[in-house]
Amino acid sequence: MMDLATEARVRESFDRQAFMSAIGAVLQEVARGRVVMRLPFSGQLTQQNGFFHGGVIATIADVAGGYAAYSMFDASADVLTVEFKLNLLAPARGSFLTASGEVLKSGRTLTVCALKVFDHDRDEQRLCAAGQQTLISVGKAG
Amino acid sequence: MMDLATEARVRESFDRQAFMSAIGAVLQEVARGRVVMRLPFSGQLTQQNGFFHGGVIATIADVAGGYAAYSMFDASADVLTVEFKLNLLAPARGSFLTASGEVLKSGRTLTVCALKVFDHDRDEQRLCAAGQQTLISVGKAG
Amino acid sequence: MMDLATEARVRESFDRQAFMSAIGAVLQEVARGRVVMRLPFSGQLTQQNGFFHGGVIATIADVAGGYAAYSMFDASADVLTVEFKLNLLAPARGSFLTASGEVLKSGRTLTVCALKVFDHDRDEQRLCAAGQQTLISVGKAG
Amino acid sequence: MMDLATEARVRESFDRQAFMSAIGAVLQEVARGRVVMRLPFSGQLTQQNGFFHGGVIATIADVAGGYAAYSMFDASADVLTVEFKLNLLAPARGSFLTASGEVLKSGRTLTVCALKVFDHDRDEQRLCAAGQQTLISVGKAG
Repeated sequence: MMDLATEARVRESFDRQAFMSAIGAVLQEVARGRVVMRLPFSGQLTQQNGFFHGGVIATIADVAGGYAAYSMFDASADVLTVEFKLNLLAPARGSFLTASGEVLKSGRTLTVCALKVFDHDRDEQRLCAAGQQTLISVGKAG
Repeated sequence: MMDLATEARVRESFDRQAFMSAIGAVLQEVARGRVVMRLPFSGQLTQQNGFFHGGVIATIADVAGGYAAYSMFDASADVLTVEFKLNLLAPARGSFLTASGEVLKSGRTLTVCALKVFDHDRDEQRLCAAGQQTLISVGKAG
Repeated sequence: MMDLATEARVRESFDRQAFMSAIGAVLQEVARGRVVMRLPFSGQLTQQNGFFHGGVIATIADVAGGYAAYSMFDASADVLTVEFKLNLLAPARGSFLTASGEVLKSGRTLTVCALKVFDHDRDEQRLCAAGQQTLISVGKAG
Repeated sequence: MMDLATEARVRESFDRQAFMSAIGAVLQEVARGRVVMRLPFSGQLTQQNGFFHGGVIATIADVAGGYAAYSMFDASADVLTVEFKLNLLAPARGSFLTASGEVLKSGRTLTVCALKVFDHDRDEQRLCAAGQQTLISVGKAG
């Protein structure tokens, strides 16, 4: 479980990511060590065949993992993505995507998250990307 | 060097990626086995500290590599990203980014590209991300 | 479940990997889409601080994933690792390691596996590495 | 260039890696930010088709990058691999392999290296693997 202060802290940081509102992504679930994002389809988010763009998929996976890591830090810490690796397993289509980030290992300096992205159409969901991400805890900017 | 037909083919596919015009990315250089993209700064492309968002960086790196691979295929083939891995080496700021994709190994089925992203401010450029990508050649959709 | 012919096929290929017997690795579990390897500690397998060497950990993770993919192919196909990414989460020590490879997505050409490595000491096990791997199905050599 | 003390420090640490002498790997070149390893062929290092095993390739790539990072630290620091990603580009054969690790970005805490592995037969060399690695600087154990 997660205290309300932590969830508020995650949402406050998320709201400052202009790129999230630009693409229409929202936080769907915020738990300690696990965050899920949701992104409705829009024609602006597509690649050459009309599917969700790989960069969009990577974006929401990276952010989900980032906040999963952030949810385990104390209020004075910020988090930066060190690197991530993502396999695109199937074309991502349907009415919306969800991306989950889940902490595999939380250390003092580094955190490692598992990333999954699903596409959703009516009642079906399908795994369309999976990856792994390394993050570093740093002092808050500003 | 590259024949004009191939460059036209790359540009035609790029133009169908709605997400590229949504973020303002353009093709800066198209050569056989090497493509460079350029992305001007915009407040819409930022993360919580006002830098270019990691997802944006990943997006242009992925696309640069994708078209570098695509530039070496014949006209009947399309290309899909299988996976990529990207290290974010420094906060990306400045007035624009460039991302290069360069073919390391081009096989019949798979291609592997090196990815680099630079940020640019006045006359200075700095490496802000580096990665590696695997792509697969497939028959054209439609 | 898995027919005996498939398990025999996995074991026959494994037995031809000279490097496996050189380091003392054995197949502990062979199921359709999931393979577990086991590697007892030996002083020869260590890095500068006396822990299992990262290269050893990567080796058994790669092989576990390789045979997990191979277990889902028909008898005429061989499998090659295209790439893998591995996070080393903790120093690996104890009396033995296990490494599991599990198929996340099995396609006609490409397979993607999740990799996990645990170290074991008495009754405790600990996740010491996690990763992801892409493999390609090819015709059998020879 | 590199002072002799640093080279001695690299060689002293390398010599304590029992797994290096077990497989027959040696340091071929030690420069500031760049290390090359060399590994002669042996039947014990092979996979099922008689080529160098992927785990062996990963091992020498990881070690080359590790010492490339280590060469840039001061004498009180040790280095650990956080993660690496490696594409196996071609079957590795021939009489010996070389693996180079080269620092792309050296930070206070994290270092990122580019990894390349070549196989050599008579006067020809061929790129058979390429990757990228993240390392962390830590206080010396003991």
